[in-house]
Amino acid sequence: MSSSAKSRTRGTARSSRSAAPRAARPRLVVGAERFTGNAIVGQSGGPTVVINQSLVGVVLEARRHKEIGKVFGARHGVAGILKDDLLDLSRESAAQLEAVALTPAAALGSVRKKPTRDECLAMFATFRKRKVRFLFYIGGNDSAETANILLECAREQQHPLRVFHVPKTIDNDLRVTDHCPGYGSAAKFVAQAFQGDDQDNRSLKGIKVNVIMGRHAGFLTAAAVLGRRLKDDGPHLVYVPEVVFDEQRFVADVLAVNERLGRCLIAVSEGVHGADGVTIAEKIAARAERDAHGNVQLSGSGALGDHLAGLIKAALPKGRVRADTFGYLQRSFAGCVSATDAREARLVGQAAVRYALKHDSGTVVLQRAKGRAYQCTAALTELSNVAKFTKTMERAWINAAGNDITPAFVKYAAPLAGELPRMTRLKGLR
Amino acid sequence: MSSSAKSRTRGTARSSRSAAPRAARPRLVVGAERFTGNAIVGQSGGPTVVINQSLVGVVLEARRHKEIGKVFGARHGVAGILKDDLLDLSRESAAQLEAVALTPAAALGSVRKKPTRDECLAMFATFRKRKVRFLFYIGGNDSAETANILLECAREQQHPLRVFHVPKTIDNDLRVTDHCPGYGSAAKFVAQAFQGDDQDNRSLKGIKVNVIMGRHAGFLTAAAVLGRRLKDDGPHLVYVPEVVFDEQRFVADVLAVNERLGRCLIAVSEGVHGADGVTIAEKIAARAERDAHGNVQLSGSGALGDHLAGLIKAALPKGRVRADTFGYLQRSFAGCVSATDAREARLVGQAAVRYALKHDSGTVVLQRAKGRAYQCTAALTELSNVAKFTKTMERAWINAAGNDITPAFVKYAAPLAGELPRMTRLKGLR
Repeated sequence: MSSSAKSRTRGTARSSRSAAPRAARPRLVVGAERFTGNAIVGQSGGPTVVINQSLVGVVLEARRHKEIGKVFGARHGVAGILKDDLLDLSRESAAQLEAVALTPAAALGSVRKKPTRDECLAMFATFRKRKVRFLFYIGGNDSAETANILLECAREQQHPLRVFHVPKTIDNDLRVTDHCPGYGSAAKFVAQAFQGDDQDNRSLKGIKVNVIMGRHAGFLTAAAVLGRRLKDDGPHLVYVPEVVFDEQRFVADVLAVNERLGRCLIAVSEGVHGADGVTIAEKIAARAERDAHGNVQLSGSGALGDHLAGLIKAALPKGRVRADTFGYLQRSFAGCVSATDAREARLVGQAAVRYALKHDSGTVVLQRAKGRAYQCTAALTELSNVAKFTKTMERAWINAAGNDITPAFVKYAAPLAGELPRMTRLKGLR
Repeated sequence: MSSSAKSRTRGTARSSRSAAPRAARPRLVVGAERFTGNAIVGQSGGPTVVINQSLVGVVLEARRHKEIGKVFGARHGVAGILKDDLLDLSRESAAQLEAVALTPAAALGSVRKKPTRDECLAMFATFRKRKVRFLFYIGGNDSAETANILLECAREQQHPLRVFHVPKTIDNDLRVTDHCPGYGSAAKFVAQAFQGDDQDNRSLKGIKVNVIMGRHAGFLTAAAVLGRRLKDDGPHLVYVPEVVFDEQRFVADVLAVNERLGRCLIAVSEGVHGADGVTIAEKIAARAERDAHGNVQLSGSGALGDHLAGLIKAALPKGRVRADTFGYLQRSFAGCVSATDAREARLVGQAAVRYALKHDSGTVVLQRAKGRAYQCTAALTELSNVAKFTKTMERAWINAAGNDITPAFVKYAAPLAGELPRMTRLKGLR
């Protein structure tokens, strides 16, 4: 473990996977005057199926500590704080909250908004009116940035506000933390989708392209391989944004697999891009706008998959080629939840409250214990270590050819997705 | 119950939902010479997540009867029979078969093929060589037609072949039967997808179009409503192929819901079509071919959703509009299985074997018992009652405006999809 990693986080000792720009330790407030007040919790960014676990973790943990009075829920994150559109979560029973925890997406409503300085100042009117001295903000790196802006504003205004970011994102692209709550369940969805689609593709043969969410990082696309067991199980090719995407190379890869197996199942990230860094999806959208007649429109979500299927069809005119774009089901499908993910999403919410009793601010992160059995504990790092930045996959998790995922990634991600259904073939076919 | 319905089916007494063209009763062979021989079982058409339950139902039931010797599995349906590409399923242990039953898609491989007369004659070479006198063919209405062609050919050739069609289709569009194995699990998938997506749409607002499989019948699209509980739960609009689709009317419907709720979740069948009967998807594909430059291609699976999203964006330029096409996940997603569906898929396979001991041919159908508690039993009808024809939704299951589904449909379909996750809102939001 590097000393720089050590200095970045508090809690159980373990190095994080990626470097952070600053090594500042979260400000510890010990022996200060007793800090009490009400709390606001908000949800922000693209929802996940376990983001309500974090919400409920915050609320139920806050109730256990006398330092925290009421817990208000902000409707649609900072938008609700701005408008004083708050729910009194003290009126929710534990049973009701537990049921909400099992419901996908943001029960408080979410938002995609980076507040301006004026809006930040306006939010302090709500904090004063509601006697709020604790803010818990659940979201990804944009939400961490929002929390950080509010923290800096509070310091400048000398408003006694403790600000904690609670991580969530199906993209799994937050720094410092081993992984992000929300990712495990989305990975489970993608893995199960590929398990079934591989059987489907085996049944009727052909070439199938599936487009997976994740603009900048390939973690979710890579989860497509988690259900592979036998040698010719799909996906047979995986393309992540960490590797430059070449259309000719892609088609050649597909034809080679199809030649060998008589079929090919492919996972492609929506964020694949050429050497210029512009995503293929953006290029298609731009071209479609130029070409548009009447209602023809290519910038919707199915365009990349259809485009890639078109490339293959052009090279293999008689082939059966299909494309699916998994879309929003990856982050919202009801009933596909990783038990580990649900538990950890709850944990980071609870931990944020416990840290808030002694610390000024920070982002809760997960640290994986060394050893064979998977175990993660919560730790704390500076907001500025997580805000804005994006973590991508390690190069060692992608094969040398840049078109598949290595066993090292499976070792990392399998415990996060949890148990998968078992696919079995007839003995005569093994 | 009408007498015509009675004369069409054997087994427990119950009328089927749609009229059949012929009322011929399956030929009963009683007191004839003892009929013994080997069996072939094949899978055909688009797979489902429970089609292997039917396969295993056939195999395990066949083992219980001394009249049936070996059970061969045809690789890729009639294609395997033609090429004598068969697996000896006697070599599969019961434990292995039970594990295969839990695996999505066709374990034997599937096929989309209507055999010619010459091919049928060629298949009798395999039947003779393998001493096959029982054929079980699992599939939809095209597969029933294939089975019927083989039956007629056998009679003409005076080859002693008993031919049984075992129903499956996620489209639920077979006649006579109350519903089709495979539909319940696909309906469960669609319902759960909408449950989660409704929460997601509630979180971040906006307009969301989801395109569902089913070219000619709206059963699967209608399943989108099965998870609705509270008044403003989505989907708010549902479009099935049974009603003529008007793009202007569609946009007006969406704008009205969006005006009222600030959001709108929409289920659209891939088979929606104008008054001329041509599907919107086909029209887009035709236009795209005319307009194509370079690799631009619109005939892939995401095109209809993107087109509809484009119509809404044109009318609401500042709106957040998204489209997803659920695609093949609907018929293959691993781990989303209706327990009722799995049980019934097994049942129709078992029943086909039992009928084959006393009857010449037929299609196994499911009949729903009257009374409050859901219960279905197997019955038998003529192949020609099911082959080729398509059943569509009852008009009473679609609202008068043609843009939503009625409670009568929910009563019909809810027991088929089985238990769904429970979505809960914060008390302050109810």
